[in-house]
Amino acid sequence: MSELIPRNEVKTVAVLGAAGTVGASWTAVYLHHGFDVIAQDPSPALAERLHDFVDRATPALQRLHATTTQRGELKLTAAMGDLAPAQFVQENVPENEALKRQVLAQLDLLLDPSVVIASSTSALLRSQIVAECSRRPERIIVAHPFNPPHLLPLVELVGHSPESPAVRWAMDFYRQLGKRPIVVRKEVIGHIANRLNSAIYREAVSLVEQGIASVEDIDAAMTTGPGLRWAVMGPHLLYHLGGGPGGIAHYLEHLGPSQLKRWSELKTPALTDALKRAMIEGVADEAAGRSVPELEAERDAALIALLEALRR
Amino acid sequence: MSELIPRNEVKTVAVLGAAGTVGASWTAVYLHHGFDVIAQDPSPALAERLHDFVDRATPALQRLHATTTQRGELKLTAAMGDLAPAQFVQENVPENEALKRQVLAQLDLLLDPSVVIASSTSALLRSQIVAECSRRPERIIVAHPFNPPHLLPLVELVGHSPESPAVRWAMDFYRQLGKRPIVVRKEVIGHIANRLNSAIYREAVSLVEQGIASVEDIDAAMTTGPGLRWAVMGPHLLYHLGGGPGGIAHYLEHLGPSQLKRWSELKTPALTDALKRAMIEGVADEAAGRSVPELEAERDAALIALLEALRR
Repeated sequence: MSELIPRNEVKTVAVLGAAGTVGASWTAVYLHHGFDVIAQDPSPALAERLHDFVDRATPALQRLHATTTQRGELKLTAAMGDLAPAQFVQENVPENEALKRQVLAQLDLLLDPSVVIASSTSALLRSQIVAECSRRPERIIVAHPFNPPHLLPLVELVGHSPESPAVRWAMDFYRQLGKRPIVVRKEVIGHIANRLNSAIYREAVSLVEQGIASVEDIDAAMTTGPGLRWAVMGPHLLYHLGGGPGGIAHYLEHLGPSQLKRWSELKTPALTDALKRAMIEGVADEAAGRSVPELEAERDAALIALLEALRR
Repeated sequence: MSELIPRNEVKTVAVLGAAGTVGASWTAVYLHHGFDVIAQDPSPALAERLHDFVDRATPALQRLHATTTQRGELKLTAAMGDLAPAQFVQENVPENEALKRQVLAQLDLLLDPSVVIASSTSALLRSQIVAECSRRPERIIVAHPFNPPHLLPLVELVGHSPESPAVRWAMDFYRQLGKRPIVVRKEVIGHIANRLNSAIYREAVSLVEQGIASVEDIDAAMTTGPGLRWAVMGPHLLYHLGGGPGGIAHYLEHLGPSQLKRWSELKTPALTDALKRAMIEGVADEAAGRSVPELEAERDAALIALLEALRR
């Protein structure tokens, strides 16, 4: 098998689906870190959307990731063929399995075999989307960012195997962008972060279903309690602290059984029309007139403040 | 029914279980906000533990809750009878149902009927622990803080009814301490925050059980992804943003079915010895030699930085 391109030889990155939020976000990140970007999207709105997004994202990137590197150059295209010169690919086409399969197969033929191709897929399995790649599927990985991708450090990697050369290559590559890559050792729907997300949402919706608290109070419980801790430490380490001086071993021995009991009592809500209405009304109360773009701007400003405070 | 004491007439707070972390933490909070505290605990280590804790907690309280109020006075006692002059009670005795029942019944007889009595219980139901209160059980509420209680704003309130006078009184009372009280409208094991906590832990442990990622990478996924967002917004509002311009209504209509499918696939782990060993080893790898007290100090320093950044 031929080698992968040395990391420091990567000058040009191809970003597919660059008119969407994830693609535009990656484009802003790569440009900021000095890579030239060939941004591809079939949408006629590509130029407008991408420039808009990059202009909005750049001040935050400058604040969070100070760099002396000169900003990269941006080229826009609708044609896949124009991506051939790239030395790394970040694919962000819509989450449609047939489309991803076809696009990745095409990229596998188009790009030099030394080039790593990363898919941002959130909901599909790597094994499914590389199924039609005939040339060098092992260089194709999942590299899933977490929204908003230009702010949050997390990148979840799934490779042909957990120790595959492409995964190891990508660990270093994303680290140099100030990202925190982690390795998903067995592919699974939702990788890790979106499974945690689903697990929380299930309980948050169940609490509404059971009439235990208002949507607004459930969200406030999160942001003034567990959410603050989860920005600092993950659940495993926090339960270790919950065990006192004896740590997690003490916790599992003494409180393991009560944790099991709690797990067995968690419920899966049924998304009835009445529950959906209650959720929609509850969110409207909480939003209190703020539009989705206004809330996004609030979220992003708070995330920037938090990332600065934690220097993460 | 007699009235509750006007909030501004509360000068003296009784704290039971003041040698424990939660009681010591509340003591630090009340003293900082100018209340005199009668701190009760049968432990011979009360004085040492409480002074230690208060000394360590005070700088953070000064930083997060600047106040011109003069610090309150602290009296220590082992005797329940000494609590009689208090105008508010925060009970933090061990999480043992029989003990809580007996202590609350005693407090109900001891304290003037105008005094609100709050239990910090995390795992017991209000209806169970007030069952032996014969005088005025409606003035007894659950007011559950989230650890570390002197730092995190959340206080979960459970009353005789969600709109009971004692709950409304406590909402105002805790707000003046810079806390964020929320109302649990129907009592349930774990209130809200610890149910969210359990839901996350279940999935975090399940990911270890299935060999999907290392303990350290699961925790890193949290703190560099969803955890950062949950410090800023709760799950309901975040899924509202996940719906794009159409918000939560759009999300539920288009992605509700796939969310239901994900919920149905979440698994409850079996806490086998092999899994426990994997968790203990994984946490040891992540802790990388840091002791529980060292990790606690790290957690608290980061929480303070975060609360300052968010001004929460």
